[in-house]
Amino acid sequence: MSVLIVGSTALDSIKTPKAENPRLLGGSASHAAVAASFFSPVKLVGVVGKDFPKRYIDLYRRHKIDIEGLQILEGNTFHWSGEYEVNMNNRRTLLTELGVFETFTPTLPKSYQKSEFVLLANIAPALQSHVLTQMEKPRFVAADTMDLWLNIAMPDLLKLLKKVDGFVLNDSEAHQLTKEDNVFGAIRKIHKLGPKYVIIKKGSHGSVLSSPRGFFICPAYPLQKVVDPTGAGDSFVGGMMGYLATAKGSIDDNIRRGMVFGSVTASFCCEGFGLTKTTHVTRAQINQRVKELEKLVKF
Amino acid sequence: MSVLIVGSTALDSIKTPKAENPRLLGGSASHAAVAASFFSPVKLVGVVGKDFPKRYIDLYRRHKIDIEGLQILEGNTFHWSGEYEVNMNNRRTLLTELGVFETFTPTLPKSYQKSEFVLLANIAPALQSHVLTQMEKPRFVAADTMDLWLNIAMPDLLKLLKKVDGFVLNDSEAHQLTKEDNVFGAIRKIHKLGPKYVIIKKGSHGSVLSSPRGFFICPAYPLQKVVDPTGAGDSFVGGMMGYLATAKGSIDDNIRRGMVFGSVTASFCCEGFGLTKTTHVTRAQINQRVKELEKLVKF
Repeated sequence: MSVLIVGSTALDSIKTPKAENPRLLGGSASHAAVAASFFSPVKLVGVVGKDFPKRYIDLYRRHKIDIEGLQILEGNTFHWSGEYEVNMNNRRTLLTELGVFETFTPTLPKSYQKSEFVLLANIAPALQSHVLTQMEKPRFVAADTMDLWLNIAMPDLLKLLKKVDGFVLNDSEAHQLTKEDNVFGAIRKIHKLGPKYVIIKKGSHGSVLSSPRGFFICPAYPLQKVVDPTGAGDSFVGGMMGYLATAKGSIDDNIRRGMVFGSVTASFCCEGFGLTKTTHVTRAQINQRVKELEKLVKF
Repeated sequence: MSVLIVGSTALDSIKTPKAENPRLLGGSASHAAVAASFFSPVKLVGVVGKDFPKRYIDLYRRHKIDIEGLQILEGNTFHWSGEYEVNMNNRRTLLTELGVFETFTPTLPKSYQKSEFVLLANIAPALQSHVLTQMEKPRFVAADTMDLWLNIAMPDLLKLLKKVDGFVLNDSEAHQLTKEDNVFGAIRKIHKLGPKYVIIKKGSHGSVLSSPRGFFICPAYPLQKVVDPTGAGDSFVGGMMGYLATAKGSIDDNIRRGMVFGSVTASFCCEGFGLTKTTHVTRAQINQRVKELEKLVKF
């Protein structure tokens, strides 16, 4: 089974205290698609400008990502530039050039519309909803978001939440959305907005799932050094959706393991700038870290 | 096997946005001793003043805590007063009256000196060291600390660390001690200061162990509501040491499970002011939550 992924496809210029990396392949859909591609075929929906480097198209292709749904328009690719502080937790946006993203309307190729697994990676919630209206009968739809949409598009987000099965957000966003400091208190309120599956990401502290079967505490893989956390959350949810699309059994049977595979994929993402490390990882390396995590939580 | 526990024995006046509770039984040794008492006999070392309420002596006795090492001196019991903010994470000390604590020199009764398990709960590191010099040949010594000692007694703390097997501290203290933001980076540096077992507490995010056998990621029990987190860290390490003192096999065989039992004991501590909830918990309730945690981390 393949996963349809819609989100941003961007060029990221990332500055850390130790290095500066201009115009790397980035965006929520790029990170999620590469992560998902370790587990299942991926159909990408996004938009780039004429300036989008051919080597990034080749990168998608090497990962067998179907780019029939990637629009290439006159104008420039969405460009984001940000800077991380020493502790790698706080980041500051230096520049946002929307480019062709400004007028983007995701239109699905016919061959995409029957996809059973849909990941609405971070992008304006109105666009996420617009993709959903074009789907025939997806089996599992998950949505990610960011603080920006909570600030400027809350009504759209609330509409979207009524239509998705799973909602993934980080702890500060969960707090912003529910006014609850306690993660488990926030989860209870988010369920009431629609999603049966709520996942709260806590960065290096791992993540928490609440599903019909109950809670799951998902560990983060221990990293002694984080090079660049950009896209880690997208890799997490992309890896999880890729795993779910190929696993047999019910969603609730598989989602815990899916989160662990996503978590490990995200750990590789953090070890290089942009997608530079992720694209050189093998499925065997991912499996190895999952095995290690199994031991790390055993008592 | 019993656990010897030295630390502060105090009266805590705790204010939260919802309530005010004056002169509750508190202090690192009180919390740790009650937590340990669910698993093994406890020998307490501490000091209180003549104002120490008899009901708290009775409380220690109900938990079968040996108080031969509890000095009762002329003067007032150590009194701490603090206030929590709405989110229960930030707290502010309103008042610290050292009382009899000012001149406290822990002197061990003869019957204490052969204890095999020693918990140096949070107290000045010079006093922790002074207790150690009186021990015959302990099998496992763990020390806790707080930011205050990192600020005013670092040389004493560094001396102590060379003599303990295990060191327990929270993530912000680990950062303060090592200047490392990354928990796993900090752990590596702390091992170099002496301890073979390093445990970093991360509050509601659980804790991490590094031992000769490797890392362990210990979950926190999911609580939807925290009433008062005072003493949770002491309960955690107290419960762990109590468990270790009765478990068969090597420390490294048992410490992971010990941490989980400690974590669950700490979860009860958070559900009431001071020790009010912990003292009404049963071993069966603790076992039940440990079973739940086993399921919560399974994938």
